[in-house]
Amino acid sequence: MHRYRSHNCGELRAADVDTDVRLSGWLHNRRDLGGILFIDLRDHYGLVQLVARPGTPANEALGSLTKESVVRIDGKVSARGADNVNPDLPTGEIEVEVTAVEVLGAAEQIPFTINAEDGVNEEKRLEYRFLDLRRERMHRNLMLRTAVISAIRHKMTALGFNEMATPILSATSPEGARDFLVPSRLHAGKFYALPQAPQQFKQLLMIAGFDRYFQIAPCFRDEDARADRSPGEFYQLDVEMSFVEQEDVFGPIEQLMTELFTEFGGGRTVTSPFPRIPFRESMLKYGSDKPDLRAELELVDVSSVFAGSGFKAFADKHVRALAVPDTADQPRKFFDQMGDFAVQQGAKGLAWVRVGDENALTGPIAKFLTEDDVKALVEALDLKPGSAVFFGAGEFDEVSKIMGAVRVEAAKRTGHFVEGEFRFCWIVDFPMFEKDEDTGKIEFSHNPFSMPQGGLEALETKDPLDILAWQYDIVCNGVELSSGAIRNHEPDVMYKAFAIAGYDKDTVEAEFGGMLRAFKFGAPPHGGIAPGVDRIVMLLADEPNIRETIAFPLNGNAQDLLMGAPSEVEESRLKELHLSIRKPQVK
Amino acid sequence: MHRYRSHNCGELRAADVDTDVRLSGWLHNRRDLGGILFIDLRDHYGLVQLVARPGTPANEALGSLTKESVVRIDGKVSARGADNVNPDLPTGEIEVEVTAVEVLGAAEQIPFTINAEDGVNEEKRLEYRFLDLRRERMHRNLMLRTAVISAIRHKMTALGFNEMATPILSATSPEGARDFLVPSRLHAGKFYALPQAPQQFKQLLMIAGFDRYFQIAPCFRDEDARADRSPGEFYQLDVEMSFVEQEDVFGPIEQLMTELFTEFGGGRTVTSPFPRIPFRESMLKYGSDKPDLRAELELVDVSSVFAGSGFKAFADKHVRALAVPDTADQPRKFFDQMGDFAVQQGAKGLAWVRVGDENALTGPIAKFLTEDDVKALVEALDLKPGSAVFFGAGEFDEVSKIMGAVRVEAAKRTGHFVEGEFRFCWIVDFPMFEKDEDTGKIEFSHNPFSMPQGGLEALETKDPLDILAWQYDIVCNGVELSSGAIRNHEPDVMYKAFAIAGYDKDTVEAEFGGMLRAFKFGAPPHGGIAPGVDRIVMLLADEPNIRETIAFPLNGNAQDLLMGAPSEVEESRLKELHLSIRKPQVK
Repeated sequence: MHRYRSHNCGELRAADVDTDVRLSGWLHNRRDLGGILFIDLRDHYGLVQLVARPGTPANEALGSLTKESVVRIDGKVSARGADNVNPDLPTGEIEVEVTAVEVLGAAEQIPFTINAEDGVNEEKRLEYRFLDLRRERMHRNLMLRTAVISAIRHKMTALGFNEMATPILSATSPEGARDFLVPSRLHAGKFYALPQAPQQFKQLLMIAGFDRYFQIAPCFRDEDARADRSPGEFYQLDVEMSFVEQEDVFGPIEQLMTELFTEFGGGRTVTSPFPRIPFRESMLKYGSDKPDLRAELELVDVSSVFAGSGFKAFADKHVRALAVPDTADQPRKFFDQMGDFAVQQGAKGLAWVRVGDENALTGPIAKFLTEDDVKALVEALDLKPGSAVFFGAGEFDEVSKIMGAVRVEAAKRTGHFVEGEFRFCWIVDFPMFEKDEDTGKIEFSHNPFSMPQGGLEALETKDPLDILAWQYDIVCNGVELSSGAIRNHEPDVMYKAFAIAGYDKDTVEAEFGGMLRAFKFGAPPHGGIAPGVDRIVMLLADEPNIRETIAFPLNGNAQDLLMGAPSEVEESRLKELHLSIRKPQVK
Repeated sequence: MHRYRSHNCGELRAADVDTDVRLSGWLHNRRDLGGILFIDLRDHYGLVQLVARPGTPANEALGSLTKESVVRIDGKVSARGADNVNPDLPTGEIEVEVTAVEVLGAAEQIPFTINAEDGVNEEKRLEYRFLDLRRERMHRNLMLRTAVISAIRHKMTALGFNEMATPILSATSPEGARDFLVPSRLHAGKFYALPQAPQQFKQLLMIAGFDRYFQIAPCFRDEDARADRSPGEFYQLDVEMSFVEQEDVFGPIEQLMTELFTEFGGGRTVTSPFPRIPFRESMLKYGSDKPDLRAELELVDVSSVFAGSGFKAFADKHVRALAVPDTADQPRKFFDQMGDFAVQQGAKGLAWVRVGDENALTGPIAKFLTEDDVKALVEALDLKPGSAVFFGAGEFDEVSKIMGAVRVEAAKRTGHFVEGEFRFCWIVDFPMFEKDEDTGKIEFSHNPFSMPQGGLEALETKDPLDILAWQYDIVCNGVELSSGAIRNHEPDVMYKAFAIAGYDKDTVEAEFGGMLRAFKFGAPPHGGIAPGVDRIVMLLADEPNIRETIAFPLNGNAQDLLMGAPSEVEESRLKELHLSIRKPQVK
């Protein structure tokens, strides 16, 4: 028999009754019923019930063991009585009568319970992560993560993509966030940087001709933690393809996401194909470029209704309306609470009306609306009796933000929010440029390296503010999983785009010389995307905090409490790296 | 039709004749035969021949293009004449008559040739890596790497292992090599370290109960480059298993390696099962713990033959002999060359004899051998007429090193070296402790964290120098792919092992407190291994330099010549990281 186990703790069934078995695992739980010990032995694969009769050496050995000790037991499988069968446990029809016990790894008193949630704080959990990961929920989350990432790799390979690793010790990049730096020992005063993303390398792989690349890529940003962003490192499904247009990128990614979320979504359905929503339309209809399409209500721009209106609060402002069917009969309290919610989002208040029979409007602002206003609203909003309408007015961005939040909140409170689905969409047609309101200068809206729609001709002939980019986001249930773009691979187009944003050729070459040089030696058209793996797992695991899906995350303060990082290092190490620590300034 | 291609450059066949196609790719080669242009268009998938007739716009467009430009062409597939079929090319039966050309990415004059090896130096290749990777050999190596790593993942998953990522921003570790450090912005004067290996984290995953873990793990060591070691980062197949003994680790790894090397070895065979060779035996027979078993000769320890001998050069020394069958008839020059080789390895010379009829020995040292010596040698070496014997004498380690090299060299020169095979072995039974010859102190031989064979009892009762460890290496064709061990998971055994090596309990707790603490909360017996992925790919690609198998390696001087790393950073960044650069000392 094997030194440690003939079976694992999850596989014994009624068919195994009378088999002599050897099991190893953790002492998960112990009950003493009149001297008979019932023990749940746990391993990676499951739980199995052990029985140790009074007066046996097994009883003595198991009776004194602390929970979470690791033991090997020998025993014989026996059927549980019909009354004692546990239908919730795969091994619930049997138990194992223990004949011998060997302690393989004794446990001290554990600092929090493993076999039940006990509200221990996160700091303690991270300090003892090796215990925390034994808990059923964390074990399940981590195994889900493993299965999801394995499936992503499998599916991407089947779709013809090749996984290639790009350097982790690399150069500082011109991307938005702050790099982590790594001092060089061999080159005094110089530093490597950890990649914020393998953006440049994946483009170089396209220029090198590899056609379809992916990587579950570790990325590093020295930024503060958020619920959906781990400080330090995170993983993205980095993807790039050559000889493609936007829809060529959407195809495989949409297939991947549909399969992945169907397979691992725990029964939640995926609505595909994913709608393509132009950025401007998304801002108008959903008040956001990350719309949660589970909320089945849409905003309508009714600014024109109030152009030149005598109603000062709306007149000549950007006015967005949200019609909510079957809501006119809600009590005043409902409308007050919606108002409170809007105030929390930064609004001064929330205007609303009820729609009565024959579309008569009532409510606080009804008296300010002319007959024409009402008629125009009924038409614009396709109003039906019994609806309620909420209004926001002000600047475009502010109104979008507030009314976008009101849309989702109202949907949740009125039964217009669909749970149990993954509703994806593509946000497309982002503007290439925007005007800085303060300076009047033309700037890049998002990614300066995206290809402008219409290429060089558009740059040379159109109003910059009318030029759209081949740039897109993929959004699921209000969570942005990734931006992506068809890249600008033509040096001439790049010089021109940067010129519009006020950069001369020399500056462009000084800042982005490496990539520009590569583009000059035969670059294919290419584009890609990089969905966040951690966010995908969060959505699938239905966890609100990203750290619940990572084995050994840094805490919110960017510390590893288990291994003690970051830590001080010896002076000799600093010297070798040509560094000294700056003394903090006394203030 | 798709904007860029209806087919790729590798897939057109005779069956496609008369099809209208659109192709995109790189202008690989161009020949002008009486005005007709023949062009090889290349993409990731292959090469296809284009034809552009004189006087056509296509001819004009393609005639002036620089090599390595990216073009889209439209055309019609036509059959090549029987004389022009190229059997070496999958598309060799057809060509494409070009009707339209669009330049997608023009190329400047390239700095070295892509379509032929031109002896360009490595620095230039790395500076233009995006061009270098277009070359057939590099493209093949990278795709092999991709396929091998994908297969490893697939096979490991099928073997029941779960891939889990461990942190890259981590704590400094007590392992042998020098860490890369990452200064913390939030914690002044403190540093993260990049992992030399995920050793502690994988053990923590076992303690957390995950049973079978693997990871294609990025590892980082701030060490100087070697042919088989990239400076900076490298990848290992990191593996750990719970409730296992040594043979339980060997099983799946042996299966993996056998399948992998059979599948990707280009027809080279794998001899399995892999022999288990005790460390001491390996040193004696092969002069090395990394034996190249393709050399089918073995050393024999003949020290006892010369104990008290009158032959001063051998008397009371460690003497190792290598008998080489069918070699006595080699000319004197062969023996002189073998002597020169031994001198290059550090020997003062190389003693040898020829074995004649009736085992009469002749040659330089024959006259020093007594009749008894000869008889003893014939027996110890099982000598046959026609053999030659080489001898080395001196200290054990020195003789092992020299005669180990002589063994392989002699095998290669005499037809006793088998090409075209992967000969793996496991080196087992490493000593736990050794004596420092200078101080007489007992020290750990290799890995202090391995479980001693016999556990606590062996530590308490045996001479430390007789204690073996559950530690092993996997070696292929003389290349060590990995060390591994059954870990010491019992705090008591660890305290005792360290006590023997002269560390008191307080020191052990101060140095290794983190892991010790984890072992005290219910640790399972566990063990693992971590074969080097880069070395596996090197062996499979039959490349002598590891950089030929990595997309974007640092150069031997730890620089990224393409992206310009490491580089200087702005003073504001240093300030943010609480660092200043030490001025170099004037000497």
